[in-house]
Amino acid sequence: MTYELDHDTAVHARGDGRYDAELAPGWVVGGGVNGGYLLAVLGNAVKDVLAARGHHDPFSVSAQYLSASVAGPAYVETRVARTGGRFSTVAATLFQEVDGTPVARLTALATYGDHDHVHDTTSDAQAAALGLSLPAPALPPRDQCVATADAPPEFKKVAPLLDRFDIRMDPATAMWAVGQPSRQGLIQGWFQLADGRPLDPVALLVVVDALPPVTFDLGLPGWAPTLELTAHVRAKPAPGWAIVRHRTTTVAGGLFEEDCDVWDSAGRLVAQSRQLALQPR
Amino acid sequence: MTYELDHDTAVHARGDGRYDAELAPGWVVGGGVNGGYLLAVLGNAVKDVLAARGHHDPFSVSAQYLSASVAGPAYVETRVARTGGRFSTVAATLFQEVDGTPVARLTALATYGDHDHVHDTTSDAQAAALGLSLPAPALPPRDQCVATADAPPEFKKVAPLLDRFDIRMDPATAMWAVGQPSRQGLIQGWFQLADGRPLDPVALLVVVDALPPVTFDLGLPGWAPTLELTAHVRAKPAPGWAIVRHRTTTVAGGLFEEDCDVWDSAGRLVAQSRQLALQPR
Repeated sequence: MTYELDHDTAVHARGDGRYDAELAPGWVVGGGVNGGYLLAVLGNAVKDVLAARGHHDPFSVSAQYLSASVAGPAYVETRVARTGGRFSTVAATLFQEVDGTPVARLTALATYGDHDHVHDTTSDAQAAALGLSLPAPALPPRDQCVATADAPPEFKKVAPLLDRFDIRMDPATAMWAVGQPSRQGLIQGWFQLADGRPLDPVALLVVVDALPPVTFDLGLPGWAPTLELTAHVRAKPAPGWAIVRHRTTTVAGGLFEEDCDVWDSAGRLVAQSRQLALQPR
Repeated sequence: MTYELDHDTAVHARGDGRYDAELAPGWVVGGGVNGGYLLAVLGNAVKDVLAARGHHDPFSVSAQYLSASVAGPAYVETRVARTGGRFSTVAATLFQEVDGTPVARLTALATYGDHDHVHDTTSDAQAAALGLSLPAPALPPRDQCVATADAPPEFKKVAPLLDRFDIRMDPATAMWAVGQPSRQGLIQGWFQLADGRPLDPVALLVVVDALPPVTFDLGLPGWAPTLELTAHVRAKPAPGWAIVRHRTTTVAGGLFEEDCDVWDSAGRLVAQSRQLALQPR
């Protein structure tokens, strides 16, 4: 069996560091293709570039979003910026052809390594002694949460993306769905991929941009185009339901930041991201 | 009068998008040159590239640090990734020659615009109505804070950087200086450039990496090399003393994140950054 994420983010090397991809229509949301999905397509190209070095896991991926993607053919150009013992860095840009002209959709810098081999027992013991690890929020049980699967059909029609995920939102941060946003700037919930594919470091690039924009909770519905998104993968996720939290603290000058934290089923922080996005009109 | 930041971060166009720079010894700290200073050098090159479009202010700059810089000649290569009405994006890499071979020190993606012309009265009014703006921490008056100017001479010798800044640390988050770290993962204080140069958007790229590593407050002294740093400039700073806060929540796998928030003298959030850095040994 092939999971849909693997099928839809597959890349095919065509030499010279270029990779072909096909952006699948299932990841469309509003006026474009989901930013986290695009990051995973690009992330798979980088993974292939660095496979021979054993650096197959993202640690840090920063992307600037340049134009809105559409479903259909795309390709990723990669260039190795540095190779090292522990980390390697690649510059990668995803393009789509429009009337025969390549148009850059997003450009990224990615530092990869191996999450199975970062383990430094000294620093782990130190870290444990420090006890410094962001705790996951306490969420109601999943059967008391608001499932995206129950979104109205007219909403799902413009957001096929919803069918890729099984999200169970904390009702306290989902009241915007019934016109009563909490205005705290917080959306959190349980997360898994709809077909049950286990999460891994590249999949976390999707998870950090999977929940609705945090601006929904501010009473600002509408699409919030990402200007820049940086994801840090902090550990390899354990299988099972993840917990995802989106927060913002500041909306100003037509922009807001959205911070995302992801914990695995063992309660360990596995990814963090921040994006700078345009305030919805 | 020329302020030292302007002198030391000046770049000279040599055509083809290349800029010469001279990394000044005053910005050395521990085993390298300060990452925020390097970002400002690179940021000045990007500013020149986009000057004709009126996009002279950074909004988002993400840098991956590839190798440790040294004082001396350097150059920045730039490539325009996208130009637009409101934002333009440039890829830029800072190199130094080592035995005649160019070595990349940091590579970055920078999205610039004009902070004087983002003002959209509709979204500003909405933002004000939302009341969502990260509040600055309450700090003791500056004369009750711990001044970096009072650091021991043996410390200043390895960190000439200290003389570039006038930092007055909140004593509650500076007890590590006397061997009693709070272990909260928090360092905050008042900030200005030592020669009183007013802050501007490019200077904020320095400010986000100016305080000591937050790991000092965890009882982990030592240099914490940055793997990746993304800075978002949220507004043009008002003149006067800024407030800067460094925090971390998670130390794991030999890495930690350091979040920095900067408020101007009017109490407005003007910059945010996050870096992923190596835990000091």
